[in-house]
Amino acid sequence: MNNILITSAGRRVSLVRFFQKELKSVFAEAKVFTTDANPDYASACRISDGYFKMQRVTEPNYIDDLLQLAIENGVKIIVPTIDTELLILSKNIEVFKSKGIEVVISDYEIMKIFRDKRLTHQFFEKYGINCAKEYSKENYQLPIYIKPYDGSRSVDNFIITTQEQLTDYHFQNDKLLFLEYLDHKKHTEFTIDLYYDKNSDLKCFVPRQRIEVRDGEVNKAVTKDAFFIPEIWKKMQHIDGFRGCITFQVFVNLETQQIFGIEINPRFGGGYPLSYLAKANFPRWIIQEYMMENQGVEVFNDWEKNLMMLRYDDEILIHNFNH
Amino acid sequence: MNNILITSAGRRVSLVRFFQKELKSVFAEAKVFTTDANPDYASACRISDGYFKMQRVTEPNYIDDLLQLAIENGVKIIVPTIDTELLILSKNIEVFKSKGIEVVISDYEIMKIFRDKRLTHQFFEKYGINCAKEYSKENYQLPIYIKPYDGSRSVDNFIITTQEQLTDYHFQNDKLLFLEYLDHKKHTEFTIDLYYDKNSDLKCFVPRQRIEVRDGEVNKAVTKDAFFIPEIWKKMQHIDGFRGCITFQVFVNLETQQIFGIEINPRFGGGYPLSYLAKANFPRWIIQEYMMENQGVEVFNDWEKNLMMLRYDDEILIHNFNH
Repeated sequence: MNNILITSAGRRVSLVRFFQKELKSVFAEAKVFTTDANPDYASACRISDGYFKMQRVTEPNYIDDLLQLAIENGVKIIVPTIDTELLILSKNIEVFKSKGIEVVISDYEIMKIFRDKRLTHQFFEKYGINCAKEYSKENYQLPIYIKPYDGSRSVDNFIITTQEQLTDYHFQNDKLLFLEYLDHKKHTEFTIDLYYDKNSDLKCFVPRQRIEVRDGEVNKAVTKDAFFIPEIWKKMQHIDGFRGCITFQVFVNLETQQIFGIEINPRFGGGYPLSYLAKANFPRWIIQEYMMENQGVEVFNDWEKNLMMLRYDDEILIHNFNH
Repeated sequence: MNNILITSAGRRVSLVRFFQKELKSVFAEAKVFTTDANPDYASACRISDGYFKMQRVTEPNYIDDLLQLAIENGVKIIVPTIDTELLILSKNIEVFKSKGIEVVISDYEIMKIFRDKRLTHQFFEKYGINCAKEYSKENYQLPIYIKPYDGSRSVDNFIITTQEQLTDYHFQNDKLLFLEYLDHKKHTEFTIDLYYDKNSDLKCFVPRQRIEVRDGEVNKAVTKDAFFIPEIWKKMQHIDGFRGCITFQVFVNLETQQIFGIEINPRFGGGYPLSYLAKANFPRWIIQEYMMENQGVEVFNDWEKNLMMLRYDDEILIHNFNH
């Protein structure tokens, strides 16, 4: 059976629907399943072809259970969606492969880089991509942006503009980095959806300019034929270990047009629906590469430019719900 | 022409779609228009049958311009959606009515009550609905909840559990009220959608139990045949000046089942889509009452119980967008 499993599906209704559409156009009977820690309350589970409750990724049996689940349900491809799963799943790619199951994910070694902001900065430097300067705590220039090297969301993030705002906490906490501050007012932000094939060659590059963010997720964005595409494409055209969807966030200085790499998430990002709707069909390419023999992916630049996405709350209904 | 105008439509895509469906089922050619301060970026405007940019409600010409717009576009009914519009629109109900345009909104005198938490508490007392005690600043019992009498969102809201957390700011700022603290862990929260007809008689009462809130908007909720319906219905069955959709938020103590009125918003709330989808068809009743002669509204209790709504981000696409 040619089924697909999307893990920790949560609210990713659009992503599940895209996979359903693309999969069923090739294998009419195939199914897109989902997992979640709370599937009854996960809208994406409710629209998938079947869902399973999974314990947290931190539990000791996670991999064994996921493997068992995939085997029992004829799953050929696993697509993870959240950061906490990436390391452990990439570490176990071969375990799944030995059972004929492909986890569409980058290599463990490269995954580790993007969990640590200092390593991420070294990565950017290696590929000739500018990023915010890291200052030493003895020698810095205000304003600075402070964040932990291994943080997520905006926990322990500080914008420091005057010396008085700095406390012992900032100096003594070794997790906190002192970084050059890139003022949001002086920069525009792009999230780029990159597709890397099985050989880690870049096949597609869609910059989505952010217009508005709501609760940490992009709410309004527009695809742009940005001036920096050829330069960054060239620098990133082959990166060992990259596979599938990679989400790359950059700031562009409005005056100097200088580009700063901010972070990389080696998974589908929350804003990917815009790229799909612009015809950058990553789900179809994944199906081609990982389910269909001898079907490679060509370079694709023909996505729709200047396509704006406005998001709104839509509803999934569950009848006779008792909780 | 029997057109409807929804003002400050923003992201209320579902509400606009419900009005479109109900209106066109009666008047096939009629249109649902929208306004917004930024209509190009408002998803609800993009799906309406036409949209108009309006200056902020605080501008001096707002009412004149809105009236002109409504006349020129054959608008029979205006449905406001945000708090800042309610007072000025209710003050001008007769101005619109003189031109044959109905603003579906409660009376100015009752609107004022819900902009002031002290008046709101008096309102609850008058109707025999329990609410959080207000303490004097000389004589209070911890824990307390502090909020401004005229606040919105959660600006200047404080949970105070120990004497040390209280500062001069809390004591000297006359806008700040000291209220009995209703612990979220000990209460469950319902938002009730009420429909009042032209005679200010209550016709429908749908309690939506909140399961999860995201960024201030309900994200998961379920309709419930709550035990308190008969009692509160009786107390609120006629309230002078109430018309159309009224949104009433209550807390219910999990142990004692005591009910506390929290606030009332005399407009469609962000969570109304669940009530509509449960068949509490307020848009149709508005059309019946304000566009069709001699068609009253009957009491309606036959809405679907235990209907759960899970929300997710859906997309509206705009092609060739240049900004």
